[in-house]
Amino acid sequence: MEARRWLCREMESLGLRARMDSVGNVIGRWEVGRGPAVLVGSHLDSVPHGGAFDGALGVVAALECVETLMESGIHPAAPVEVVGTSEEEGRFGGMLGAQAMAGVVPEAWFHSAEDDRGVKLADAMQKAGLDPQAYGAARREPSEIKAFLELHIEQGPVLDRAGRSVGIVEGISGVFNWHVVMTGTANHAGTTPMELRQDAFRGLADFASEVPGVLARHGTPASRLTVGKVDLQPNFPHTVPGRAEFSIVGRDMDEEVMTAMAAACRGVLANAAERNGLTFEIGETSWLAPTPCHADIVEAFVRQAAALGLDAPVMPSGAGHDTQVMAQLTRSGMIFVASRCGISHAPEEHSDWPDIELGANLLLHTLLDVASLELGWSET
Amino acid sequence: MEARRWLCREMESLGLRARMDSVGNVIGRWEVGRGPAVLVGSHLDSVPHGGAFDGALGVVAALECVETLMESGIHPAAPVEVVGTSEEEGRFGGMLGAQAMAGVVPEAWFHSAEDDRGVKLADAMQKAGLDPQAYGAARREPSEIKAFLELHIEQGPVLDRAGRSVGIVEGISGVFNWHVVMTGTANHAGTTPMELRQDAFRGLADFASEVPGVLARHGTPASRLTVGKVDLQPNFPHTVPGRAEFSIVGRDMDEEVMTAMAAACRGVLANAAERNGLTFEIGETSWLAPTPCHADIVEAFVRQAAALGLDAPVMPSGAGHDTQVMAQLTRSGMIFVASRCGISHAPEEHSDWPDIELGANLLLHTLLDVASLELGWSET
Repeated sequence: MEARRWLCREMESLGLRARMDSVGNVIGRWEVGRGPAVLVGSHLDSVPHGGAFDGALGVVAALECVETLMESGIHPAAPVEVVGTSEEEGRFGGMLGAQAMAGVVPEAWFHSAEDDRGVKLADAMQKAGLDPQAYGAARREPSEIKAFLELHIEQGPVLDRAGRSVGIVEGISGVFNWHVVMTGTANHAGTTPMELRQDAFRGLADFASEVPGVLARHGTPASRLTVGKVDLQPNFPHTVPGRAEFSIVGRDMDEEVMTAMAAACRGVLANAAERNGLTFEIGETSWLAPTPCHADIVEAFVRQAAALGLDAPVMPSGAGHDTQVMAQLTRSGMIFVASRCGISHAPEEHSDWPDIELGANLLLHTLLDVASLELGWSET
Repeated sequence: MEARRWLCREMESLGLRARMDSVGNVIGRWEVGRGPAVLVGSHLDSVPHGGAFDGALGVVAALECVETLMESGIHPAAPVEVVGTSEEEGRFGGMLGAQAMAGVVPEAWFHSAEDDRGVKLADAMQKAGLDPQAYGAARREPSEIKAFLELHIEQGPVLDRAGRSVGIVEGISGVFNWHVVMTGTANHAGTTPMELRQDAFRGLADFASEVPGVLARHGTPASRLTVGKVDLQPNFPHTVPGRAEFSIVGRDMDEEVMTAMAAACRGVLANAAERNGLTFEIGETSWLAPTPCHADIVEAFVRQAAALGLDAPVMPSGAGHDTQVMAQLTRSGMIFVASRCGISHAPEEHSDWPDIELGANLLLHTLLDVASLELGWSET
């Protein structure tokens, strides 16, 4: 809340009309040009023990764009709103700030949501001085908004490895999250011959060894297929594992590719289970479709990058962002600034200032471009 | 201790001279024949929540042999001692009863040994009424002992699957126990492309998928190679595993085979690490050489099985037993009775009485055979 108050004061000192809405989003409006407003920003919240750049960078970059335009006497063709959203990191499992602006807060979730420690969302809002009954008041009218632009750190190694400063996001990858249980028989590892085992870990290993094959046959460069969590039972060196629980998380920008990867994973799991005398169950924790960025916004970013002589590759985002929620409200798009070594959600998170400057410049020129665009509403 | 007192009373009621030695071994001596004694028995202790057959069956089978011989008026050619050893299951990490009889208790271990809850071996002995200072008194003179014979349940599925009642053990497999750590880099599973990962679990999976190949190239039918314990870090579905700790336990009856399997595992680990950009460390927790049963005893079991028309395969033991320790004291050998479904160390542990009777009969006839054998001491 202290950061929010600071941001409001900064906005006011630039002459913006600053306010905090009913869910804690901070919005500073520059009454300039005409027609629906272009929103520029990112989120203000962070993860515990996180870095200084994730989210906040996109908010201050938006503010810097406005300040620079004002100092240079340049007036965008449409009103501009600098936005610092709340609760993007999902302490309560959603992206409350952006969801409330887009009017897509699931009511049942809102009333039951709690954090890892069992703190209710409504109680946390009340403690912060917000009225949980009033979350609907944060909703924006689509007709009042022309677009949403976001600058964010990449949180991955792609730009850093490629030696690029800035990337243009084509969309947020879709993701499926499976919880798989393979069941065999726990047995003494000394007395049970190899051919008489139903070794649940062998089933998992057989699956995992096929992951590169699944990706080669069905994936794209944007595909990810990860086994990140494994729990064996009884998990004892001298006992053949009787049960393996593990996660499979798949991602791609194309839902058909996701479907093909998921089907291939099912087939590989079935073969691995049969080969090792196991049974298996797949629990699909979630299936989120990809969210493409709006073509007009991606084109504007590409156009302005070219005009600036900036070599900014178009790339998917494997992580979730406010942009994917704002896409339900308006034309939305985002750019990435390189993250050193891809590190994020840690104090070592870092982006170089020259890269940030290039990203902020691209944001500024695209903001002017989009403010001037003639856009038919049917395209949203 | 109650079971030990019961066993002493049973022995005495048969006219044996019963005693408990300084580490809790119960020994009932039948003063018959002449020369060094044939020892017959197994262990009295069990695991928590274990079954009724593991250990105790071999003790009561030995007692039954003596009773049957007495009832039939048959006198073995040498004294017979029925033995119920203590502490075979390794609550304190050793096989104290047999080690004390064989005079091979490691002194440093004896004084530092404690159980999972931190109870010292010496304190547990004192609580049971035993004098920990006196463990040396349990040592037997090799010249007083001719052989050690043990009947034990198989604790594995081989006999049950093959439809056999009894097996003759050729030896106790050697075993190596490795604790392996593979280290890569933990990264966001959405933002880190497949080709930029150092995924520690992929290293483990690549190793595990080569296990059948290692066994095919270097193993024997007695070989076992098991990954029973796996711990990933951070073990979170959306994070590429940065660290995988896992166990590799290898077994064979031939130490050269063990050495070849271990070398092959090292090579496969190195390849898997290199392919995935990982480092790895192997900690060798233990390397125990195989313990062959004494050829004279195996031959006697084979000879008597043939005489009884019993189809008893000669097979390795993948689990440890008193016999492997007693082999340091005297000519030692053992037989297995089939375990239903190979289940052991659980209340469902079961062996059929007809199988047990066949095993006990083989034990009785082999006891007579060995008692009569002319054996040169140089062979021990």
